[in-house]
Amino acid sequence: MKSFRKELSFHLPTQRGFINITPQVEEALRESEIKEGLCLVNSMHITSSVFINDDESGLHHDYDQWLERLAPHEPVSGYRHNDTGEDNADAHMKRQIMGREVVVAVSDGKLDFGPWEQIFYGEFDGRRRKRVLVKIIGE
Amino acid sequence: MKSFRKELSFHLPTQRGFINITPQVEEALRESEIKEGLCLVNSMHITSSVFINDDESGLHHDYDQWLERLAPHEPVSGYRHNDTGEDNADAHMKRQIMGREVVVAVSDGKLDFGPWEQIFYGEFDGRRRKRVLVKIIGE
Amino acid sequence: MKSFRKELSFHLPTQRGFINITPQVEEALRESEIKEGLCLVNSMHITSSVFINDDESGLHHDYDQWLERLAPHEPVSGYRHNDTGEDNADAHMKRQIMGREVVVAVSDGKLDFGPWEQIFYGEFDGRRRKRVLVKIIGE
Repeated sequence: MKSFRKELSFHLPTQRGFINITPQVEEALRESEIKEGLCLVNSMHITSSVFINDDESGLHHDYDQWLERLAPHEPVSGYRHNDTGEDNADAHMKRQIMGREVVVAVSDGKLDFGPWEQIFYGEFDGRRRKRVLVKIIGE
Repeated sequence: MKSFRKELSFHLPTQRGFINITPQVEEALRESEIKEGLCLVNSMHITSSVFINDDESGLHHDYDQWLERLAPHEPVSGYRHNDTGEDNADAHMKRQIMGREVVVAVSDGKLDFGPWEQIFYGEFDGRRRKRVLVKIIGE
Repeated sequence: MKSFRKELSFHLPTQRGFINITPQVEEALRESEIKEGLCLVNSMHITSSVFINDDESGLHHDYDQWLERLAPHEPVSGYRHNDTGEDNADAHMKRQIMGREVVVAVSDGKLDFGPWEQIFYGEFDGRRRKRVLVKIIGE
């Protein structure tokens, strides 16, 4: 069994946003030289997500509005977590809906995807450097 | 290390619905002859889910109503994604709540489940053929 | 390839609550003697969650209030699942938002975590014994 580890790094200038990180994960898979196995991709932070969906800007706009409706940023004082001096309690909620991680099958040296699957980093408390972990095991 | 890959295929006649796919996943596990490892089961589509919960029809009715309340199909024009000619933006939301995938332990040649765990395919944009990927690695 | 399996057991005196189970998972990892691989941690029940977030009591209070707003316990009769004699339909919803499982990379014999990541058991239908499965594969 082989294993491979790589950190990806991102810095969004805005509070919230989505980045297609599929090319970076594919690059990690090539470097790993693993042909059959499982690829874990997870946010190393607790106010952001890694998820799989469609690369369509209208959809990303809809996700943003929808998450803001389910877990509004304001009023900041409405969350007890924000009594600690933070203002990002809503980001901890949004991240739970979108998920921390994805596990992707590796088959024939490739991410084993359906036709529209792409991997995204979802940021809900940006404006600073954040990391994503790629861990691949297999042969 | 052994690895095994199989696609399952489904076609729901309705827009939304849940199918218990545990027997098909157990069949794939038997075919794999893997006794100890991990079994990934994921939707290959971005408007449907694979998740684990209870096989109880009242609960599935409740899930459907609840998801429709959190991410209503109508008004279709309320989602920018639907400007592309689609009408399934809500399905992309529902799928995020229910999840893309499950990872199940394989122990002693069996899906290592608690008493009520069953695997479901959750469709939110049906009336066409959809695929689920089963990938098992182990020994 | 090595594999390791362990069940953890919990009993919350309240209907809902969160327990930091990171020490128990780290103990299981030490027992496994696995240095590189993947660690699956999942609830064996369908009304509770395993998830990764921050160990901050204000945040846990916020999660509880937020989940109750998205999937209220009352009115119990509002859920068809509860016609079966149960009163825990809401717990099946809350668990879907928070998730069933986490998959954590194992690197250098340690859970490969970002700075604030901790593993929690989230109970939504407590007052009885519940189990969590830890399955680790690797080398």
